[in-house]
Amino acid sequence: MEALDYHAEERRKAEFDVEEMKIVWAGSRQAYEISDRVARLVASDPVFRKDNRTMLSRKDLFKDTLRKAAHAWKRIIELRLSEEEASKLRFFVDQPVFTDLHWGMFIPAIKGQGNEEQQQKWLPMAYKMQIIGCYAQTELGHGSNVQGLETTATFDPETDEFVIHSPTLTSSKWWPGGLGKVSTHALIYARLITDGQDHGVHGFIVQLRSLDDHLPLPGITVGDIGMKFGSGAYNSMDNGVLRFDHVRILRDQMLMGVSQVTREGKFMQSDVPRQLVYGTMVYVRQKIVADASCALSRAVCIATRYSVVRRQFGSHNGGPETQVIDYKTQQSRLFPLLASAYAFRFVGEWLKWLYTDVTQRLQASDFSTLPEVHACTAGLKSVTTSATADAIEECRKLCGGHGYLSSSGLPELFAVYVPACTYEGDNVVLLLQVARFLMKTVSQLGSGKKPVGTIAYMGRSEHLLQCRCEVERAEDWLKPNVILEAFEARAARMSVTCAKNLNNFANQEEGFAQLATDLAEAAVAHVQLIIVSKFIEKLQQDIPGKGVKRQLEILFNVYALSLLHKHLGDFVASGCITPKQGALANEQLRLLYSQVHFDNPSLLLYMVLLLERLLQSTSF
Amino acid sequence: MEALDYHAEERRKAEFDVEEMKIVWAGSRQAYEISDRVARLVASDPVFRKDNRTMLSRKDLFKDTLRKAAHAWKRIIELRLSEEEASKLRFFVDQPVFTDLHWGMFIPAIKGQGNEEQQQKWLPMAYKMQIIGCYAQTELGHGSNVQGLETTATFDPETDEFVIHSPTLTSSKWWPGGLGKVSTHALIYARLITDGQDHGVHGFIVQLRSLDDHLPLPGITVGDIGMKFGSGAYNSMDNGVLRFDHVRILRDQMLMGVSQVTREGKFMQSDVPRQLVYGTMVYVRQKIVADASCALSRAVCIATRYSVVRRQFGSHNGGPETQVIDYKTQQSRLFPLLASAYAFRFVGEWLKWLYTDVTQRLQASDFSTLPEVHACTAGLKSVTTSATADAIEECRKLCGGHGYLSSSGLPELFAVYVPACTYEGDNVVLLLQVARFLMKTVSQLGSGKKPVGTIAYMGRSEHLLQCRCEVERAEDWLKPNVILEAFEARAARMSVTCAKNLNNFANQEEGFAQLATDLAEAAVAHVQLIIVSKFIEKLQQDIPGKGVKRQLEILFNVYALSLLHKHLGDFVASGCITPKQGALANEQLRLLYSQVHFDNPSLLLYMVLLLERLLQSTSF
Repeated sequence: MEALDYHAEERRKAEFDVEEMKIVWAGSRQAYEISDRVARLVASDPVFRKDNRTMLSRKDLFKDTLRKAAHAWKRIIELRLSEEEASKLRFFVDQPVFTDLHWGMFIPAIKGQGNEEQQQKWLPMAYKMQIIGCYAQTELGHGSNVQGLETTATFDPETDEFVIHSPTLTSSKWWPGGLGKVSTHALIYARLITDGQDHGVHGFIVQLRSLDDHLPLPGITVGDIGMKFGSGAYNSMDNGVLRFDHVRILRDQMLMGVSQVTREGKFMQSDVPRQLVYGTMVYVRQKIVADASCALSRAVCIATRYSVVRRQFGSHNGGPETQVIDYKTQQSRLFPLLASAYAFRFVGEWLKWLYTDVTQRLQASDFSTLPEVHACTAGLKSVTTSATADAIEECRKLCGGHGYLSSSGLPELFAVYVPACTYEGDNVVLLLQVARFLMKTVSQLGSGKKPVGTIAYMGRSEHLLQCRCEVERAEDWLKPNVILEAFEARAARMSVTCAKNLNNFANQEEGFAQLATDLAEAAVAHVQLIIVSKFIEKLQQDIPGKGVKRQLEILFNVYALSLLHKHLGDFVASGCITPKQGALANEQLRLLYSQVHFDNPSLLLYMVLLLERLLQSTSF
Repeated sequence: MEALDYHAEERRKAEFDVEEMKIVWAGSRQAYEISDRVARLVASDPVFRKDNRTMLSRKDLFKDTLRKAAHAWKRIIELRLSEEEASKLRFFVDQPVFTDLHWGMFIPAIKGQGNEEQQQKWLPMAYKMQIIGCYAQTELGHGSNVQGLETTATFDPETDEFVIHSPTLTSSKWWPGGLGKVSTHALIYARLITDGQDHGVHGFIVQLRSLDDHLPLPGITVGDIGMKFGSGAYNSMDNGVLRFDHVRILRDQMLMGVSQVTREGKFMQSDVPRQLVYGTMVYVRQKIVADASCALSRAVCIATRYSVVRRQFGSHNGGPETQVIDYKTQQSRLFPLLASAYAFRFVGEWLKWLYTDVTQRLQASDFSTLPEVHACTAGLKSVTTSATADAIEECRKLCGGHGYLSSSGLPELFAVYVPACTYEGDNVVLLLQVARFLMKTVSQLGSGKKPVGTIAYMGRSEHLLQCRCEVERAEDWLKPNVILEAFEARAARMSVTCAKNLNNFANQEEGFAQLATDLAEAAVAHVQLIIVSKFIEKLQQDIPGKGVKRQLEILFNVYALSLLHKHLGDFVASGCITPKQGALANEQLRLLYSQVHFDNPSLLLYMVLLLERLLQSTSF
């Protein structure tokens, strides 16, 4: 088919070392090689085929998923894959399944919150999958506000048991993956009550189904919550509902690593610092940001391939029509997404470093950087997942009618990705947490407390509030320092304006509620600055390979200037740049699009090479 | 369940005449009554249930769809429904099916493009559904550019037949609804070739399947193109692929109403003015805009109900948590969408008038308003469908995790709606058509030719290019004239700037290609102005019912000011308003949200009442 020729033609025009770019993307040569090897392994295994996934009925899809999970497990053992390799294998199998929760949530929670004895009791069974566990926190009426959970665990000193109960409809556990059909056990979160006193939310291990016939145990109502977005996507997962009618469990099934209840029913809080949980949180969020860059790169890859193959209008003298990638309207929508994929990749890489740093500090009981780390990771999770969800849908639209077919891969990619905007912290709630941190930083500016890390620029707020952008010609916008200062000035000014406006309210909380939208916008400005600055830091490193750094510089400029254009109101209204400078940025952006395309067309195709095998079942 | 009480409480607080508002929405009392009656009819009929739709396999979904289509037909006959009632019934059944194309495209095309004889031959069979037709225009490689279609219809004078052929893979017909499984006939578009000469694209009636055993006829390859976005959505439709291998049809199967081929193979163009097709185009587009307001209102209704029922955080002293609709972040995302639904409704209503006006002019051979009408309808189709698609997804996100469940109704509403951005003109392509019209208007400004209709404001461009917004206090932004002038100034300045920048290119076409993104943005500004101005015109009418007009005024201000905030860069950078005035608009917007919510909560629930029955299967 002609398509292949168009791709070959584009690839031939490469002006950078594609192999080296692959390594930049993967993070290291070793990471690239593992990824490449495991990808081939999955692609060549017929059990892992996914071309027929969307055609299956829900039941058949579920069976197919169980089969793949069992086969993945078998291959991991047979090939003695390392933890990194096994994780890559699950990534490429690319079908949500109960084991994600069993290995990713149930086991880690027992490790992290169980005491020595509990770990010895439960973990061996879990490792051998003699029991299968899920993680049951969210309730029908309670998501973001974990402290509002209603399920109760009431200690009965007479029998040395907890009574687990769902007192209301809204207290039903709702959403846990693996719960609906598969799990034998659940780690449930419930309000601990001893002697009539509520000690807040704690974790308990509860058996749900018989190990003999898999039927629900007495007092347990459990089931699947039905279809979700898409035809494949998370419909391979048995997200479930769970209700307890006075179910009794032994006292030692409360996870006692941090808090305990004694035989007498006395509640005891351990002296392990609460802050230790932040380590896990940073880990999970860096993973989410890395996943965002992967999902985005897949969507961009599909849309780019399509844009190269698809031709429409512009035929001269009966010749072929114009490749749609040559249209500025296509470029201005697609290239910023390509650039975002790299931007998220690099900030995700930096988050890995941050995780190591935080872990070391926590071990040394240094909690000083936690507020900044918390705000930065919350913000990055929110901004990258929202941008990625929107971008996947934009890529789908960039494929015209064909993006609407499941065979394009994009509808399912979208449907399986969007929950990332909600889980591990709703994106709007997270932005408001960032905003609280920003307001606190502004309020302490005069106090001599020096802002550190990603908020360090606020220490120069006096300069940033009055500096003037010095751009006079379009090409001035290519200088990283010019871009950085514009983003810093925008973020600082939006935060300071919010702080000033908050002072107009008698009550700080009322002000925060009223100005929530402005605060969320200020938080976005702060987070975009972080992403821009980490991209710049990446470019200051030594990057080998002919032309690779140059390509990344172009992508950096596309990323930053397209953001500037999108948020022109912020930059101009706050006086960071003039309307004329905004127009010059837009002009430079247009020139960059031409460079990306005409000087270096194969830049667009690097991902094609890397991800081609992922898409065997989703080509046009 | 508690949910019902929350709704009742909100409804109780109504400060306007809900019955009168229903009539405003429907357009007239009669339209409301028909809609209400037919909605009840559908909701109470078990054959039309849709609560299990997403659980079905593709095959079962298709069977379910055929059953519903047959039942709808039966009920329409039994109840002797009028055309308007029958159309409403199909709307409420709400499941795409082959008859949409048979009645909506196949039959109208024969009526419009066939000659008297052809109509007499084909229409009776089509009316009785003895034959079932689809509309096969789009090809695998050709969508927007109809002139690029590759299928050929070559006249063979020896046998007095046309030979229909698919010369390439990309010439395969691809997408036609009803083609994959059901249709016996197709109206296909192919290049007419007589005596080696290509006369461009014309329509032909081709039989595809045997009327005896429904098997494809010799030379015909036909099938379904597979799964599409969502689990229900357009998967109820058999969008198909079709290839011809030298299939012969009689000469009189070319639609000869406009052009003819004689027995000798001579091609003859009729003298019927080409412009007549614009009437149909205006009709189709006004329907799409009306559909946009309906789809958007359904999504907003679901998100509003959820926001009233859902409570999260903010519990004081053990009381209930805060309804999420009370959060400014929720309001600032939801209320502009509610306002947009009304805005699209009213501009859609105006389009109905425009259609009547155009039809009368065409009958009188007055083609003078066509360029303006073409630009205006193209732009409104593009802007309203793009905004609606985004808004449905935003509503889904506003329902947090629950929006991800098919039972929320939102995933399927999104999946079934998004094709509107592509069909009947790709939204980006349409914006560029609008931009061409704008550039032409600007270039003629000095010529004495007075712009009319929706572009009349350009006649005052001298004023609009230098006027200054007079807003000094937030409440000044409540004045319709102030808003209108700001939107006019923005649209005029963006167009004029584009026109100036085009002059920097030696070649006009090259400039148009390079500046396509700016041009599309100018087109959006023009179209948003149209919507704003038609909303203002609506408010100048007499609107009965206590408090109804006041509510609509609030919604108008929410619509206009939220657009202004979203596109602040346009307004400030072009000097239409100052940064300070932008901040005042934002402040006023925040105050309006509070009014919508606290003074008039039931405003939000009008749609609930209207659409409740639509959602019987999609409640939380």
